Amino acid sequence: MSTDPNAAAHHTADLSDEEIFAAHEGGKLTIRSARPLETQRDLSVSYTPGVARVCTAIAEDPSLAQRYTGIGRTVAIISDGTAVLGLGNMGPRAALPVMEGKAQLFHRFAGLNAVPIVLDETDPDKLVETITALAPSFGAINLEDISAPRCFEVERRLVETLDMPVMHDDQHGTAVVILAALRNACLLLGRGLPDLKVVISGAGAAGVACEKMLADAGISDIIMLDSRGIIHAGRGDLNEVKDELARTTNPRGVTGGIFEAFEGADTFIGVSAGSVPEEALQLMAERPILFSLANPNPEIDPELAYRYGAVVATGRSDLPNQINNVLAFPGIFHGALAAGATSITPEMKQAASQAIAAVAAEHLDVEHIVPSPLDARVAPEVSRAVAAAWAAATA
Amino acid sequence: MSTDPNAAAHHTADLSDEEIFAAHEGGKLTIRSARPLETQRDLSVSYTPGVARVCTAIAEDPSLAQRYTGIGRTVAIISDGTAVLGLGNMGPRAALPVMEGKAQLFHRFAGLNAVPIVLDETDPDKLVETITALAPSFGAINLEDISAPRCFEVERRLVETLDMPVMHDDQHGTAVVILAALRNACLLLGRGLPDLKVVISGAGAAGVACEKMLADAGISDIIMLDSRGIIHAGRGDLNEVKDELARTTNPRGVTGGIFEAFEGADTFIGVSAGSVPEEALQLMAERPILFSLANPNPEIDPELAYRYGAVVATGRSDLPNQINNVLAFPGIFHGALAAGATSITPEMKQAASQAIAAVAAEHLDVEHIVPSPLDARVAPEVSRAVAAAWAAATA
Repeated sequence: MSTDPNAAAHHTADLSDEEIFAAHEGGKLTIRSARPLETQRDLSVSYTPGVARVCTAIAEDPSLAQRYTGIGRTVAIISDGTAVLGLGNMGPRAALPVMEGKAQLFHRFAGLNAVPIVLDETDPDKLVETITALAPSFGAINLEDISAPRCFEVERRLVETLDMPVMHDDQHGTAVVILAALRNACLLLGRGLPDLKVVISGAGAAGVACEKMLADAGISDIIMLDSRGIIHAGRGDLNEVKDELARTTNPRGVTGGIFEAFEGADTFIGVSAGSVPEEALQLMAERPILFSLANPNPEIDPELAYRYGAVVATGRSDLPNQINNVLAFPGIFHGALAAGATSITPEMKQAASQAIAAVAAEHLDVEHIVPSPLDARVAPEVSRAVAAAWAAATA
Repeated sequence: MSTDPNAAAHHTADLSDEEIFAAHEGGKLTIRSARPLETQRDLSVSYTPGVARVCTAIAEDPSLAQRYTGIGRTVAIISDGTAVLGLGNMGPRAALPVMEGKAQLFHRFAGLNAVPIVLDETDPDKLVETITALAPSFGAINLEDISAPRCFEVERRLVETLDMPVMHDDQHGTAVVILAALRNACLLLGRGLPDLKVVISGAGAAGVACEKMLADAGISDIIMLDSRGIIHAGRGDLNEVKDELARTTNPRGVTGGIFEAFEGADTFIGVSAGSVPEEALQLMAERPILFSLANPNPEIDPELAYRYGAVVATGRSDLPNQINNVLAFPGIFHGALAAGATSITPEMKQAASQAIAAVAAEHLDVEHIVPSPLDARVAPEVSRAVAAAWAAATA
């Protein structure tokens, strides 16, 4: 590969604290009237007395709230601050800049209103109760930066309880983009998706959702690694989620650690904080697909990745093929809201993944297996595909 | 008085359902990036990887959240939908258009971000718990349209618990504007505020807060009326809040109903849904001050009010002297946030009231005892006064 891992590195390296903090001064969002509010008449229409007619209409027919309030285009971005980026448990206020940034992206790419909500609460029961109480304020809920394994339970219970799209983006948004990239890597290398032998390092939010999406897409040979090695049925230290993984993955029944996992594998997906030694790469099949997505330090040193890999992706904005979930979440939520979906189904996630892959497939090469995060075509395509998947399932 | 009560009535009467619903289509707010988000660099500064530095800084020093997130200029407008305008308990979703309208006004008059939050929860314990959990998302909390007497307890407990400005606007915003109007009515009529004999009809959110503000301003002769008559110590049907009122108001120990209350009174403040007969007005002192604020039907028929009253105010936008709390809440919250206040004290409310009165006092006449709701001078003056009151108390 010709890629010099340092070529585009100025994007990250050049960011000064001064520039970053200046861009956060006073917060990153503006919440304002969508319409002029200049005259007494404007006030009377939007506020009292006019607003009373709209309230009365919604009280009589609650479905009118979709049309005459903002909920049809408003997403709550809700975090408890327990798994902020790769930084860990920082508490709600320190998580707020991430939620604000995400809200910026929701509007920038999908024209959606998004509201950052950080909760001073980490107990799953209380999180579910609190989020359920505030849900009528919104049309959909993007859970964010909630640590595993609590995130699985909180999401599952909210999906069961609430009649609106709920998605933990660290799980599914990331998985959607990974699968899109993997599709295009296969296309480029002339390989069949179902034939891949995949190692996923990390059995947290992203790893677990990624495994499910890859399995749904037809990949059967997946080995999951956590910090204690390969997940298999013989391990006695597994929580409920990993116990399930032990039953559904690892069909060859491999045991051991990273070396045993990598033996003969042709695809590596890293969504952990671990580090992969060169010796492990040497055990892989020829010209493997290497997605090492840990940020800022990929599991595989970029220099090694480009030497061994046929296709390389990272989570970094300064390297080619950035796996950035901004490619997924604006379009997924836009499509779900546009379709009036009451949940985000596996089919909708698969459709989102295919749509992202299709945009990049128009000009596919080894450095462009996913679109640029700034590619304005992506969110509308994802939205259309997601809405169509919902419509097809409910037709 | 020369005012024809029907002269300006076109504002309300002319509003068609078509116009009102069109203005609510898709909701009334836009939430977007406060800065351009065009380049990969913009993304890297606002979102990953740049945002991580801000998160880390706030985790190390939580006070930095005031500066580097939006909380320093963000108010939550929180309702449970139990007392929507004069419409009663309509539930959370039907309350949302009011909260959106209020958020429009927060930005329009004070440049603040405001987030509508409606809660599917009415138990006071649960309300306090839920609001406490989501409080770190915001810099201040405007409670709205929560029914009495729950609103008193919920506000009191949140003020105790949270280290940020919390105000139930139906109580205090309304009271602030009423007192401002009353100050100017006295100025106009050459009367002394402390000498007024006041009847307040309605012992709900607005009535109770109004009584406190008037007492704080030096008025001692206040009689409160609820739907069962005058509140006095001999009544056996009083809740905790009214029991307190029985001790602190009605110094002449008047008992009975509306006629006994009005006998010799020179000021009427109606914040109820009742109706005042002409015979009651005939019992009042000469040229009384008549504020009948029920909407859309004032307690005193406007025709009667203008015939008997020296100064008349209503809650209606189509009549002179509209008591509209938009004169108060944008500036109060702006001032409290600007001062870094951790609560909204009685002194800050008095200061807000004086500031509103002072703006109108520049061109005082019987039809202009309060500024127009569109008067752009008001919010900055209120903000300045409120911030100064906080600074004076904490200096």
